[in-house]
Amino acid sequence: MKKLLIASTSTVHGSGYLEYILPTLTNFFKEASTILFIPYARASGKTYDEYTEIARKAFATINKEVKGIHEFNNPKEAVQQAEAIFTGGGNTFELVNQLYKNDIIPDLTKAIENGIPYLGTSAGSNICGVTMMNTNDMPIVYPPSFKTLGFIPFNINAHYLDPNPDSTHMGETRETRIKEYHIFNGTPVLGLREGSWLEVNGDSIVLRGNYTARLFKQGKEAEELETNTEVSQYFLQ
Amino acid sequence: MKKLLIASTSTVHGSGYLEYILPTLTNFFKEASTILFIPYARASGKTYDEYTEIARKAFATINKEVKGIHEFNNPKEAVQQAEAIFTGGGNTFELVNQLYKNDIIPDLTKAIENGIPYLGTSAGSNICGVTMMNTNDMPIVYPPSFKTLGFIPFNINAHYLDPNPDSTHMGETRETRIKEYHIFNGTPVLGLREGSWLEVNGDSIVLRGNYTARLFKQGKEAEELETNTEVSQYFLQ
Repeated sequence: MKKLLIASTSTVHGSGYLEYILPTLTNFFKEASTILFIPYARASGKTYDEYTEIARKAFATINKEVKGIHEFNNPKEAVQQAEAIFTGGGNTFELVNQLYKNDIIPDLTKAIENGIPYLGTSAGSNICGVTMMNTNDMPIVYPPSFKTLGFIPFNINAHYLDPNPDSTHMGETRETRIKEYHIFNGTPVLGLREGSWLEVNGDSIVLRGNYTARLFKQGKEAEELETNTEVSQYFLQ
Repeated sequence: MKKLLIASTSTVHGSGYLEYILPTLTNFFKEASTILFIPYARASGKTYDEYTEIARKAFATINKEVKGIHEFNNPKEAVQQAEAIFTGGGNTFELVNQLYKNDIIPDLTKAIENGIPYLGTSAGSNICGVTMMNTNDMPIVYPPSFKTLGFIPFNINAHYLDPNPDSTHMGETRETRIKEYHIFNGTPVLGLREGSWLEVNGDSIVLRGNYTARLFKQGKEAEELETNTEVSQYFLQ
């Protein structure tokens, strides 16, 4: 049974890496002793080693070992043999590029079908959607496709931000960007605020954390979903 | 001789569409009676007709006629016959997608070589760079390439924003995103603040407007360029 945590961010303001979600992770990863870390998104341009070290330190506090996928000779085998998987944030274009380059999409799909627990934060959450088309990231590399893992039947907009009524900046708001997306695409989008995450168990998808999330559907007014809502009911065909 | 105005934004806070730059445009377009408008970026999801109407109204105040490229049977011929060209803002991915789909990149290149004056705002400025890799836009469509017109030897980050020291938001700052870009790419990037533009005359590229612009080069500290600076000197090989 599919078992995912899809988080808006790794870090909330004023707190350490993954700190806000560690109690949840202790339970979520309770059957794993080692977590495979996928550092391909290279947050702030960190090297794979530097980035893996940050994940390693955070998980050491709940007695989990972390191995970077780049430490294996064969990344496909690393995924196939993983007890648990964590994909960190950074740049979604580069992350998706590396998923294709290393041909691990089929292996990730298989692992998740087999019930291997998966944690994503930010870019690592974007790739759980149908496409990466609602990332906020800069297109610093050209991936072979925008299609992603499709573990959930909608897309994620991570770090969702409400329009700032005091702003004098003329760049598009997040909501405007997502409405532009729906001119060209039918897949719904869930705007996840920092500190929110989705808990996926099989077909159940529940919103967790302290905030509401903003649901955008083509041709409809956006709506706010309360925390602890069973989100999957909004996507029944 | 190449003759371009490359503006960060069409509109500054508290003022009408193109209003801040109309005095400059009166002189820039003095030899044209009709301006070809390229509405492909579809700001806020507007239709081509709606968007063209907005440009038409602004240019009517300086006695210029505006024709939308979509009003022509053949967009390539529309570019070939244009007296002056204006590409508006919106979504850069969709704009670039349509440039390729309508195969007008060679025609735009030729027109600019022949001295046809070109105005770009926001997305319409991004495409003047070497690639569209420094857009802030959402990847709502998958264009066949990120390569753009290369009228200038660097990329543009339009609507450039300084980091906000009071922000509690954990998403990347603009500067962090551009630094991530430079891990993978060598082309320099100029962050153009809203109200700034570049005036290109042949090989000369001068920063205009009331603000400094922020120049990012691979492996170097970012630097602020003063307004009225001859920017091209920073890109001599």
